[in-house]
Amino acid sequence: MKTISEASSLIRAGELSPVELTRSVLARIERFDGKLESYVDVYEEEALSQARAAEAAVTRGDRLGLLHGIPLALKDLYDVAGKPTLAGSAVREGHVAAEDSAVTTLLREAGAVLVGKTVTHEFAFGVVSAPTRNPWNLDTIPGGSSGGSAAAAAAGLCLGAMGTDTGGSIRIPAGLTGLVGLKPTFGRVSKRGVAPLSWSLDHAGPLTRTVTDAALIFQSITGFDPADPDSVDEPVTNVLAGLDSGIAGLRIGVPANYFFDDLAPGVAAAVQAALDVLADAGAELVEVTVPDVECSREVVTTIVGVEAALIHREELRTRPHDYTEDTRERLTAGAAIPGTAYVDAMHRRRLIVAGFRSALSEVDVVATPTLPVTAPPYGIAPPEAMAALTRLTSPLNAAGLPALAVPCGFADGLPVSLQLAGRPFDEATVLRAGAAYQQRTDWHTKHPPLTE
Amino acid sequence: MKTISEASSLIRAGELSPVELTRSVLARIERFDGKLESYVDVYEEEALSQARAAEAAVTRGDRLGLLHGIPLALKDLYDVAGKPTLAGSAVREGHVAAEDSAVTTLLREAGAVLVGKTVTHEFAFGVVSAPTRNPWNLDTIPGGSSGGSAAAAAAGLCLGAMGTDTGGSIRIPAGLTGLVGLKPTFGRVSKRGVAPLSWSLDHAGPLTRTVTDAALIFQSITGFDPADPDSVDEPVTNVLAGLDSGIAGLRIGVPANYFFDDLAPGVAAAVQAALDVLADAGAELVEVTVPDVECSREVVTTIVGVEAALIHREELRTRPHDYTEDTRERLTAGAAIPGTAYVDAMHRRRLIVAGFRSALSEVDVVATPTLPVTAPPYGIAPPEAMAALTRLTSPLNAAGLPALAVPCGFADGLPVSLQLAGRPFDEATVLRAGAAYQQRTDWHTKHPPLTE
Repeated sequence: MKTISEASSLIRAGELSPVELTRSVLARIERFDGKLESYVDVYEEEALSQARAAEAAVTRGDRLGLLHGIPLALKDLYDVAGKPTLAGSAVREGHVAAEDSAVTTLLREAGAVLVGKTVTHEFAFGVVSAPTRNPWNLDTIPGGSSGGSAAAAAAGLCLGAMGTDTGGSIRIPAGLTGLVGLKPTFGRVSKRGVAPLSWSLDHAGPLTRTVTDAALIFQSITGFDPADPDSVDEPVTNVLAGLDSGIAGLRIGVPANYFFDDLAPGVAAAVQAALDVLADAGAELVEVTVPDVECSREVVTTIVGVEAALIHREELRTRPHDYTEDTRERLTAGAAIPGTAYVDAMHRRRLIVAGFRSALSEVDVVATPTLPVTAPPYGIAPPEAMAALTRLTSPLNAAGLPALAVPCGFADGLPVSLQLAGRPFDEATVLRAGAAYQQRTDWHTKHPPLTE
Repeated sequence: MKTISEASSLIRAGELSPVELTRSVLARIERFDGKLESYVDVYEEEALSQARAAEAAVTRGDRLGLLHGIPLALKDLYDVAGKPTLAGSAVREGHVAAEDSAVTTLLREAGAVLVGKTVTHEFAFGVVSAPTRNPWNLDTIPGGSSGGSAAAAAAGLCLGAMGTDTGGSIRIPAGLTGLVGLKPTFGRVSKRGVAPLSWSLDHAGPLTRTVTDAALIFQSITGFDPADPDSVDEPVTNVLAGLDSGIAGLRIGVPANYFFDDLAPGVAAAVQAALDVLADAGAELVEVTVPDVECSREVVTTIVGVEAALIHREELRTRPHDYTEDTRERLTAGAAIPGTAYVDAMHRRRLIVAGFRSALSEVDVVATPTLPVTAPPYGIAPPEAMAALTRLTSPLNAAGLPALAVPCGFADGLPVSLQLAGRPFDEATVLRAGAAYQQRTDWHTKHPPLTE
């Protein structure tokens, strides 16, 4: 299993054929995905055709994009022209996308080979992602809602995958499957052509094995898109330039409130060890407080509930039974939330934003656990999974800040994850901190036993 | 009746005593306000004390602020330390403000003499402003919700007054009483210490007799306030510098849609004549379309309904009968609006913003009537007044753009008003266009017959 940057170097050197790489990924899907069920659709023919074109470009000596010849997967919320975007729901049956999503286009432009679409929790409205299993232990879930992307990337059924994150849906499955997951700043990556769950909280971002790989995808998909009303016209930073320059003197805040409460013991120990690694790397650990963060989950739940209910208003009225019961109940509940509760949540959200601004005025990055627990058992009910998994990720959706999940060890054989969050549009520093951590550790080189 | 700039010149030259000016204003209040009922509280003693201090500063040769010695009034939504802010409601009985509002402080710093507080429609949630009467015809209303400020300024019971504008509440009463009214860009003037009606639509701004006077007040109160969460950290422009430089070559858009539909004949004729004056002054009139503006009133109604219901949640529950019936019904209706309708309105609001952005990419300013009619009869029911008066002003609240009402003639003896709207934070151009109009016309020199 190669990382994106390893494969990319070999492809550029003419030592690895994009076609052979794509074939090997397709072979792994064939071999393992019967058990994992991470893909909903594999674009075998198109992928091989893209890989052949990528190979021809190498042969011709063309200028190559950052992801040239790299097999990637897309969560089944991203439109690919001519393909269905089913979003994990029977409601979408018969859908065919007219155009590529903005990210799909940018990945193609960067040279990526699009292997297929991965399982999402229905409309990204949950963190279970049935029927996908966690490659680290098939009796556990990969989390979600980008669970298919996580399982596929963790098991080497692609070299990286796109997810979306409304309350943690990139970082949660990244955390549960030993991957890196990046939720960029709100508005930094276009969501045009991505099925929405909650306009004001949705983010698009990558899941990969290394921070460098996440940076390569992020750099390829980032930028202003006037066609996405949430896109922000902020200059694009080169996050690759200083990625490996280390974190000597970086001020890393460790919250005294909320984020370290009620952690599973193995999680607490692994995250503490990760903080020690960051300190060894030269960072200065500073205790901080993030005011008003305690209400994050309730705030996010209210906002998502209302916005999702509006997005699904028509379908919920005309074909309610095409939703799973859990989703239907949550949408119905969302439709009943009064406007006053929504506005109140938006106001409390402002306090959360201000709380992080205050903390991040003292430090460059805030470090927390990504999750309080490791992967829950397969079969867990969606509401129970939601309660267990979103506590530490949802504050960063409310705040709209860049947040990175980095694997930082194991507890009882299951991955544990460190979350690094930064200032608005400062993905560069967050990624640099994550890269410094991965330079000193080898958790990201471990592979799930199933797929060794 | 002097304008602010006339009085200011005389004060600076030592030819007008701030004390005498204040006394003359207090005498006019004494003489006329029994009929007009524009003030809820007159700060006679404090105003005279401020005027004496202003006079002493002139005598000493102190550096003088833009409003030095000028008697102004505040709508009774603005906090003045130690005074009640009753907001036109029995709900506020017993209230005493602990601190000055941001605007109150800035007016004091500019040297203004604060004469008193003016009638507002209850919590600014309407456009009638009972019991205030319109000085142009006591059998008509001054409009609202800043109706007291408008009646007082129009009748010379102050030289200018502060209002607030959520759906037109500065421009409507300015338009009905022959005044200039400026709603600045959303976030340009701090609302700290101003009783809110709808956070996302409220604006603070002045009512005056001339555009120059509005510019003097605007310049004095404008700027970033970190303590107001809606305040925008945008550099302050000097709107006074180029105010009289004319509008040769200025592109003024005249909407082909919506804004000129169903106008009272006298209004249509006066506004058309005003456009001709602008063209004579060298402006290029350009037909424009403002897409999606048709839903403005419904959008504003939904947003105000929800936000007002949240602001008044506690009081509506504990003391519903301290509200007037109309307000209570509207708050109750607002509380019943689902979150989905609010978010939907916010989305349509985005379309309105984009519609104006599109129109203002072709022109510098958009010119429309402020109101489709002249002042309605005294005794009109609040819902009827609302329907008649907010059609042409509310789009600029939804869009958050600077908008200026300028008196442009009379129909059946009642004032008609021209509305000039501009790009975000470009109050300077809007004011310059209004000033060019007033240089060529004398409507602003006419006084209500009552108070001649």
